[in-house]
Amino acid sequence: MKALGRHILVEFYNCDAQVLNNLHHVEQAMKKAAVRAGSTIVDTVFRRFAPHGISGVVVIAESHLAVHTWPEYGYAAVDLFTCGEKVDPWAARDYLAGAFRAGDSECREIPRGELRVLGEDARHKPAGSLGALPKQESP
Amino acid sequence: MKALGRHILVEFYNCDAQVLNNLHHVEQAMKKAAVRAGSTIVDTVFRRFAPHGISGVVVIAESHLAVHTWPEYGYAAVDLFTCGEKVDPWAARDYLAGAFRAGDSECREIPRGELRVLGEDARHKPAGSLGALPKQESP
Repeated sequence: MKALGRHILVEFYNCDAQVLNNLHHVEQAMKKAAVRAGSTIVDTVFRRFAPHGISGVVVIAESHLAVHTWPEYGYAAVDLFTCGEKVDPWAARDYLAGAFRAGDSECREIPRGELRVLGEDARHKPAGSLGALPKQESP
Repeated sequence: MKALGRHILVEFYNCDAQVLNNLHHVEQAMKKAAVRAGSTIVDTVFRRFAPHGISGVVVIAESHLAVHTWPEYGYAAVDLFTCGEKVDPWAARDYLAGAFRAGDSECREIPRGELRVLGEDARHKPAGSLGALPKQESP
């Protein structure tokens, strides 16, 4: 493990405009993507805006998946931020490409919380002060 | 306007571990950051995980703000994704640096939905099919 999290920024182009403007379809697609990634869904928030466009977030135990759609451009901006080695954000990306009927996409993977930057010193300092907090200990 | 959205990825280092592990503080800080940015809050989801760490999302009318904290590293990964020229994600970033008592930070601004890529052709195609949808028209 080189970083605490993996964050994939996906631009989906030339998608099906009707899918991108359908609250139920977008929400179901994002939830299924979370399952395909192997993550655990904690909560979701989805909204449709006037005149069109949907924003939604799936909070997962391993971080979050987010989507914002611009049906008028056939475009969806998707963020797949996951932690841990058991979760595969690329599986979510592959599923969504199909669900949104994307003609094209661009992806960038950005490591979040790189261990070479955080280092062991960084870990020890805050962990010490955390020990003094009430109700913060593992069972 | 060169892109539909502006996405700032912020790594906050050497933060106050107790703040990063306090659900109320983190949630309030993220909501205030949304207000400082000039955005409109639509909904929020915040959770604390065992043994420590918080995940939260503020869905705004102009996209979303997200946070994941690792108090044991004094580290918080923050995403500030905004649309429109009236919202300033950097104001949110500046507020959060103070709220989390960050000793250091790294920021990347990534344009989302670049108009040079989407182009006018991209807009015309899906917009045409959108016109046939019920309840999708502006009032």
